[in-house]
Amino acid sequence: MISVADLHAGLGAELEGVEQLLGSISDEVDVPLLGQLIRHVLQAKGKRMRPTLAFLCARFGQYPVERLTLLGAAVELLQTASLIHDDLVDDSATRRGVVTLHRIANAKASVLVGDYLFAKSAAFATATESLAVMSLFARTLMAMSDGELREVSNSSNDDRTLDQYYRRIEGKTASLFVAATEGGAILSEVGERGVRAMHDYGLNLGMAFQIADDILDFVGTEEELGKPVGGDLRQGTLTLPVLWALDELPDGAVLRRVVEAAENASDEEVQTAVRLVAASPAIDFAQREAERFAAEARAALAVFPAGEARRQLEAVADYAVRRRH
Amino acid sequence: MISVADLHAGLGAELEGVEQLLGSISDEVDVPLLGQLIRHVLQAKGKRMRPTLAFLCARFGQYPVERLTLLGAAVELLQTASLIHDDLVDDSATRRGVVTLHRIANAKASVLVGDYLFAKSAAFATATESLAVMSLFARTLMAMSDGELREVSNSSNDDRTLDQYYRRIEGKTASLFVAATEGGAILSEVGERGVRAMHDYGLNLGMAFQIADDILDFVGTEEELGKPVGGDLRQGTLTLPVLWALDELPDGAVLRRVVEAAENASDEEVQTAVRLVAASPAIDFAQREAERFAAEARAALAVFPAGEARRQLEAVADYAVRRRH
Repeated sequence: MISVADLHAGLGAELEGVEQLLGSISDEVDVPLLGQLIRHVLQAKGKRMRPTLAFLCARFGQYPVERLTLLGAAVELLQTASLIHDDLVDDSATRRGVVTLHRIANAKASVLVGDYLFAKSAAFATATESLAVMSLFARTLMAMSDGELREVSNSSNDDRTLDQYYRRIEGKTASLFVAATEGGAILSEVGERGVRAMHDYGLNLGMAFQIADDILDFVGTEEELGKPVGGDLRQGTLTLPVLWALDELPDGAVLRRVVEAAENASDEEVQTAVRLVAASPAIDFAQREAERFAAEARAALAVFPAGEARRQLEAVADYAVRRRH
Repeated sequence: MISVADLHAGLGAELEGVEQLLGSISDEVDVPLLGQLIRHVLQAKGKRMRPTLAFLCARFGQYPVERLTLLGAAVELLQTASLIHDDLVDDSATRRGVVTLHRIANAKASVLVGDYLFAKSAAFATATESLAVMSLFARTLMAMSDGELREVSNSSNDDRTLDQYYRRIEGKTASLFVAATEGGAILSEVGERGVRAMHDYGLNLGMAFQIADDILDFVGTEEELGKPVGGDLRQGTLTLPVLWALDELPDGAVLRRVVEAAENASDEEVQTAVRLVAASPAIDFAQREAERFAAEARAALAVFPAGEARRQLEAVADYAVRRRH
C-alpha cells in the first residue's frame, strides 16, 4: 500500500523549500512569545498533503518551483491557521499528537496567532504574483469559513441531512485541496481546461479524504489519529457514519441519546456509541462513498496524458481512502 | 469645526455604494445565524473613515468608482473583522454603542464571524483586480496582526516605551488607513510618487487618529465614545497619556498600582487613575504628538496640486485630532 513517503517521492527538494519558508515565519517575528507559539504549531507537521498536491498538479505544464513553493506554503498555512481557530472553537485538547495552542497558551493567543498565520498565508499567495491564484485564495477563505460556520450552526439544530454534510466538508476540507490542485494548475499554465480538471480532481479528492477521516474517527486508534477516538461525536459534529447510523440502525438508541446530549454525554456513553457505529454497516457505507469520490477524482485526470505524473495523482486518490491516519 | 457630515460631503453616492456592498453580505449567506450576527456587527456604522479616505485619495487621477467601492468595503470589513477579534481577546462589552458579538453570541461565533469577514474582505480586495492592491491588502493584514500581538504581549511585560507604543498603533490602526489611502492612489493611477505620498499621508493620519482616540479614552464621555471611559487602562493597554504619566507624574502612585494590577484593579482605583491622567499635562503632551503627526500628514500632500481635493484631505487631518468621538 502507498505510504506518506511514497506520496513525497521525487519532491524532496521542493518540500524542503516549503519547510524553509514555513520555518522562516517564526524566525522573522520579533515578538518572542509569538515566535514560540508559531514554532509550536508548525512542529506538528502532518502529511503536508496540500503542498505535495500543489507540486504534483503542476507537472503537466510549466513548473515554476519558486511560485509553487509559495503556493504550497500558503495553502499549508491556511490549513494550520484554520485548525488553530477550529481547535479553539471546538475546545480540542490535542492535534496531530501535540497539545493545541489554546491549551498551552490561551484563547487570546489562539485567535491572534491564527490571524497572523492567515495574514502570512495571504502574503505568500500574493507573492506568487498571480491574480488567478489570489482570487482562488479569496474563494478558498470564503468556502472554509462558510463550511466551519455550517458545522457550528448545524450541530445545534435538526437539519441533519447528507446534503448538508457534503456542503460542510466541501467548505471545510475540499476547498483547501482545490486551492492546492487548481493553484498548481494555474501556475503551471496548462490552460482553462486543465485548470478546471485540476479543480475537479482536488474537490473530489478532498471529499474522499474527509470522509476517510470521519471513518477513522470511529475505527482508528488514538495513537494513529494523534487525538482521541470519537472526538467528532463528543463535540456534536455529525459525520457521515453517524448520519447513516441515525437513520438506519435498528438498535441506535444510545447513539441518539449521545447525539442529543452532545457535550453532556458521559465518556462511557460516547464509547458505547462509537463501538456501535464502528461495528455497523455505517462504516462500509461511508467507505463506499469515499471510494466513489476517489474514483471521480481519478476520472477528472483523464484530460492529462497518461504517464508517471498522472499515475502519482491517481495513487494519491487511492491513498486518501485507504490510509490508517 | 469639521463634522462627520462634512467629511462625507460630495461622497453620497459613493458611500451608499459601499453600504450596499456591505449590506449584501448578510443577504447572501444562507446560514441564518450568521446573517443575523453580520447584520448586528454592521449595524454599528462608525464614521466610515476608511472608505471615505479611499475615495478622497483617488481624486488626483482616474476615479474608477466601482473598484474604489470594492476597496472601501474591503478596508471597512478588515476593520470590522479585526474589531470583532479584538473585542473577544479583550473581552470588551460594547463597541460603537452596541453590545459586542461575543457577548450577544459567544466566543465561537466571534472567531468564525471575524474569519468570515476577513475572507469577504479578501474577496472584495481581489475583485479590484489589482495585484498592487492585493499585495497592499496582504501587508495590511500582517501589520494589523503584528500590532495586535504586540499589544497583548507588551501588556504583560515591562517593555513600556514610547517607541513600542508607536509600533503598536502603526500596526493596529495606521496600517488600515494606509490601505485606504495608498489603495485609493493605486486605483487612481497617479504613479509611484503619488502612491508614496498617499502612503505617508495615511500612515501619519492613522497615527494622529489613534493618539486622539487614546486621549478620548480619558477625556471623553461614555456617551461620546460608545464604550466606558478608561477602557484601555482597565484592559492593561498602555497608551500614550499613560506612558507619559507613568514617567513624569510626581503623584502617580495610584496609576502605577492600577497598571500593575491591570484587570484586578477595582473600578474605583481605575476611575481615580483616569481622573489623574485626564487632569495632568499628559493630555497636552499627547495632543501635541497627535498634531505633529497630523502636520506630517498634511505635508505629505504637497506633491498634489492645491485645490478642493487637497483641501478636503487636509480637513480630514484636522478633524482627526479635534474630534470628540
